[in-house]
Parts: sequence; C-alpha cells; structure tokens
Amino acid sequence: MVLTKNELLRMVDHSLLKPHLSFEEIKSGCEFARNMNCISVCVNPGHVLLAKEILEGSNTAVGTVVGFPSGAHTTYTKAKEAEEAYRLGAVELDMVINISYLKSKKYDLVKRDIEEVVNASPGIVKVIFENHYLTKEEIVTACKLSLEAGAHFVKTSTGFAVTGATIEDIALMRKTVGDKAGVKAAGGINTLEQAIKLIEAGANRIGTSKTREIIEQF
Amino acid sequence: MVLTKNELLRMVDHSLLKPHLSFEEIKSGCEFARNMNCISVCVNPGHVLLAKEILEGSNTAVGTVVGFPSGAHTTYTKAKEAEEAYRLGAVELDMVINISYLKSKKYDLVKRDIEEVVNASPGIVKVIFENHYLTKEEIVTACKLSLEAGAHFVKTSTGFAVTGATIEDIALMRKTVGDKAGVKAAGGINTLEQAIKLIEAGANRIGTSKTREIIEQF
Repeated sequence: MVLTKNELLRMVDHSLLKPHLSFEEIKSGCEFARNMNCISVCVNPGHVLLAKEILEGSNTAVGTVVGFPSGAHTTYTKAKEAEEAYRLGAVELDMVINISYLKSKKYDLVKRDIEEVVNASPGIVKVIFENHYLTKEEIVTACKLSLEAGAHFVKTSTGFAVTGATIEDIALMRKTVGDKAGVKAAGGINTLEQAIKLIEAGANRIGTSKTREIIEQF
Repeated sequence: MVLTKNELLRMVDHSLLKPHLSFEEIKSGCEFARNMNCISVCVNPGHVLLAKEILEGSNTAVGTVVGFPSGAHTTYTKAKEAEEAYRLGAVELDMVINISYLKSKKYDLVKRDIEEVVNASPGIVKVIFENHYLTKEEIVTACKLSLEAGAHFVKTSTGFAVTGATIEDIALMRKTVGDKAGVKAAGGINTLEQAIKLIEAGANRIGTSKTREIIEQF
C-alpha cells in the first residue's frame, strides 16, 4: 500500500490520554496535531475546552473519551458524559463498552449502553471493545451490537490494557462490519510499519500517541 | 500490632473492580465478602444494584468508584456518577482526583472536583490520588485539598497503575491528615504482612482483591 504522509495523518487520531499529562503538555500535543494536520486529537474530557481553543478553525477535530478506560461506568453516566462532551466541543467520542455485560452475555444491556451514547451526542461514536479481554466470538458479537446501536466505528483497544491492536483482530472486525462502520486500530501502535499493516488489514483510523515517531519513519 | 482476623476484616474493602468480571463473579465475590464480614465491597458502578441485592441486611456495605480509574472525567460527570451511585445503593464512594489538574497546579479545580462529589452524595467519600504519578509534595497538597473539600478518607492508589500503596506514602498521608480523615491503602496488597505494616504506618482501611489469600495467612 502506498500512502502519502498526509493521507496517513488524515487517518490518525493523535492520542493524549495519559491521566497525568499537564495542561502545558496537552496544549503542545494539540498544537503538534494541528500542525501535522491529523484528523483529530483524542483528549480526556477534562481537556476538551483547552483542545477546542487550540484547534478552533483547523482541520483537526476535537475528540474525547466516554466511560474510559474501564467501560465499567453505568449507562446513565456514559450518556451524561457524552452529552457534556459534545456541548463542550468534542465531535468525536470514543466510548468503552461494558465488558462485564458482554462477558455475562447481557447483550441488551451492551447495546443499550452504546445506543444511549449515540443518542446523547450528534458526534461520531467509536466503540472500544478492549479486545485483550475478549474471545474472537465476543469481538464479533460486539461488532454486531455496535452496528445495531448505530455506532460509527468499532475500535480495538483503549491503550491501557496489556495488549492492543492486532492484525488478526482488525481483519475480523472489518470482515464483520463490512462497509457499515469504520474500524479504528489503537493500543501499542509505535511504528509506521505497524500502522500500514493495520490499514492494509482493514483499519481506516489509527489511534496513537506516537504520531511524531511514526511520521519520522517516512 | 496484634489484630484479630475480624478486626482486620472490619478494615478491608474487598475490591471487585476488574472490568471483565462477570455478574457471576461479582455475585460470588460479594457473597464471600459478606461471609467474611468485610467492612465493604468495592464494585464498579454497573454492579452496584447486584451488590446491594446480595449485601442487603448484612454488615458489609456497598461501595463503588467514581471517575475511575483515570480520574480524567469532568467534575460534572463525577458529580452525576456519585449522585446516581448513592441513589442505586452505594454508601461508600472511592473517587479519583483529576491528576492533570494537580500536576498543572490548578488547585482550585482539584478541590472543586472533590467537593462536588462530596456534595452529590451523603455517603463516605475516599479520595484516590494515584500516588504512582505524584511527588511527595503533590501527595501532601492532595491531602490538604481533600480535607478542605470535606472528604472522609484519602487513598493511595487505584490498583491500576504500575505501583500501589507504600509504607512511606501511608505514613506521609497519615501525618498530613492527622485524625481529620481516614487513610486507605490500596494497590498491590497481597499478603497479611503487607496489610499489617500498612496499618502500623497509619492506614485504617485496606483495599484489596486478595482478601482470601490474606486471611488464609492468619
């Protein structure tokens, strides 16, 4: 696959999610993403206002996370968080499913959890599964429930579990959602080679905090 | 220090926070804590109703977490989450501070974040610092802000960072809060010896998922 630097950057959600990053670090990370022309940044909810200020008028969208990184919050809390995030200026929301509900085969609850976030915000909703904890069958189920709930993307990982995006999982997720949703690879993506392989396997978004390192490898 | 088994168990918050635990696992964990006479369980918000059902009428309280484990949610979301948690039956709330606000020296925001959770729920509020990311000076500052905000406990860690409770940090936290707040040690507590040492250093609550293993060492 031949991709230009800019084509790749238009698939990169530049991730700034470590909870100990200071306002200064978030600011410079957002400036970097804007200068690089990344498609979006992904910041924690407490940094949405700051990111909006820096990215206003640029081609880099403000993204944030919902129920992150455990997914173990209630549906009510996730919906409130999504509603506020959009109100503050985030137009892309990466939410984590309730992994316990999925493991317990409470599929209606998993679906409703996603639906309420989709309904709470007009933004793009990406549904993080945290594949590290899931069987292949559970990944397929989570893809189907995400589609039924009206989500726009399915996403492999938070970046906070032991493992992240794999080629195999991306291929499975793309096969399951077809062209009905986007597929975002995230978690442990540190090199250009990895990013390209994940895109070849079916990803059309890459979440990484290593954007600088990846671009330097061009 | 000589403690009976029951004296120790009356200081143990039995932790059931792994996001992939199924309803069955939460159920048996709560039954275990009830039979052991633990002072409380600490479950994720999506499991509060289930825990309440099992612990009703026992001496084991239902606890949950707020803004967990990143602390990076907005104050609005944390307050909503705390309000709902109490409504659902949780009387102990372990909230995580906004680490980025503390690192950025935005002390008013850190304090308000805690205050809004305290005000949102009549329950006991324990404030988790996630000491792994903090300097000793920041730990002292976080203790003072927690007291000013009306919190009932200060707590070392979520159990999801690389390091957890240390003797040194517990001693520092106890020295700083004096008798004005409780001190909870959590994160990586796997043995009876560790638990006793942390109590000797000033802790009056222990958060652990290893309650069974610790009690077997008596």
